[in-house]
Amino acid sequence: MTDYPFVKGHGTENDFVLLPDPDGSVHGQLSPERVRALCDRRAGLGGDGVIRVIRSAALGVASDAEWFMDYRNADGSVSEMCGNGIRVFARYLERAEGASGTLAVGTRDGVKTVVFEDDGRLTADLGEPEVLGESKVSVGDRSWPAVHVSTGNPHAVAFVDSLDDAGALIEEPGYDRSVYPEGVNVEFVVRRGEHHVAMRVHERGSGATRSCGTGACAVMVASALADGNGPGSAYRVDVPGGELTVTWTADNRLLLTGPAVLVASGTTDL
Amino acid sequence: MTDYPFVKGHGTENDFVLLPDPDGSVHGQLSPERVRALCDRRAGLGGDGVIRVIRSAALGVASDAEWFMDYRNADGSVSEMCGNGIRVFARYLERAEGASGTLAVGTRDGVKTVVFEDDGRLTADLGEPEVLGESKVSVGDRSWPAVHVSTGNPHAVAFVDSLDDAGALIEEPGYDRSVYPEGVNVEFVVRRGEHHVAMRVHERGSGATRSCGTGACAVMVASALADGNGPGSAYRVDVPGGELTVTWTADNRLLLTGPAVLVASGTTDL
Repeated sequence: MTDYPFVKGHGTENDFVLLPDPDGSVHGQLSPERVRALCDRRAGLGGDGVIRVIRSAALGVASDAEWFMDYRNADGSVSEMCGNGIRVFARYLERAEGASGTLAVGTRDGVKTVVFEDDGRLTADLGEPEVLGESKVSVGDRSWPAVHVSTGNPHAVAFVDSLDDAGALIEEPGYDRSVYPEGVNVEFVVRRGEHHVAMRVHERGSGATRSCGTGACAVMVASALADGNGPGSAYRVDVPGGELTVTWTADNRLLLTGPAVLVASGTTDL
Repeated sequence: MTDYPFVKGHGTENDFVLLPDPDGSVHGQLSPERVRALCDRRAGLGGDGVIRVIRSAALGVASDAEWFMDYRNADGSVSEMCGNGIRVFARYLERAEGASGTLAVGTRDGVKTVVFEDDGRLTADLGEPEVLGESKVSVGDRSWPAVHVSTGNPHAVAFVDSLDDAGALIEEPGYDRSVYPEGVNVEFVVRRGEHHVAMRVHERGSGATRSCGTGACAVMVASALADGNGPGSAYRVDVPGGELTVTWTADNRLLLTGPAVLVASGTTDL
């Protein structure tokens, strides 16, 4: 294979290798091996995932959205959506194709909308949350009650006294496998002020990460409910890699607002 | 600052951001902040270090070598030399300037020579080792005797029964601070066969890494001496990120042979 183009970018330090491939002619079937090679942080370019930027028609997807976010996890597996990645995807289309205003983005979880905000941030509509009761998470010999929130993927949200209580998060926290048979993302949360919380996260399959978009949404929902709030409120959610805002709309949708930065572009033969 | 060029490459997965800057006009004084931003593995391009490729004259260095390896650690500090980085530096000059045969490279540790081998690997002359006695290293409640070898920087080489004995190497191994007042790189070594060993390494300031060129040299020296060999022998040294060959010449110099790969190039405004 000869060199092909790439762009590197991140949203709150959740980072991605973007592969511009408008008509699908560059990559054809994007192999898991290539995704792993690109995401390798020493031998490759490094990333939490790869996002191929392709027209829906070129992918053979019937969609109302012209552009499709073909998202892959760093391990090469296909994923439906990524709450931070979709902002980086939109930022790329702003730069490369002049996208502005409101952008429809095709994903394996359906068409999502992204809004370019006046302050430079972007807002993605991540759909409706589901609150599914309470279970328990643990680290070492400590455990905490945790709210089960689904925001497309499953989360266990635990309120802690200090973010340090969760330790280094090198190992996966303990959780109830009967509640989460396919694993769970675990968020540890402290309050910072009114409508303002901070979190750390352990993502299933990825470990401790700098940010998790759907996790921030789950944390906001659990925090709002604990505060006696609900739909029709907004929270600032600090993550290790930056700052997000989550708005829970009156009609029960979650809007995730945050930055998206493109840091480099070039070619690779990985 | 507008966009400037970069190249990403690695030698046995010790990875670097190269900054082509032949006449010094691109970066002037390369700031520690920029080095840290480039090496950040989430918000930047990611690397164990930055190598500016600049002519000695442009840097104001009187040198017999036309090209100078201006090496910086990921934390922004200046470093004299890097045994894996110098191969990647030479690979870049092969690609960009047609370097071949034997290349003289200016470094803060003097002029080094790199040879382009027929098999595609590169060999760097890292100078003379010093063997400075024995001390002890420890991980948790286990400890091992360790040979003190200096190959430009200080090493403690411990022979272990299994590379797993050193654990995850998340924390710095214990060592004798009276022997190593400025810290030490600790290598754990097992034998794989005749003239063939494998190692893991914990580098001071960097933690567990995929490869350490001067560490491989120290390991070779300790292994050769333990085997009753010495100058005039060669060992294969497997590191987590690949395979190196270290030759201890009859005139007491260490030659480090290994691969160097350029994986991507482009522009960034980091």
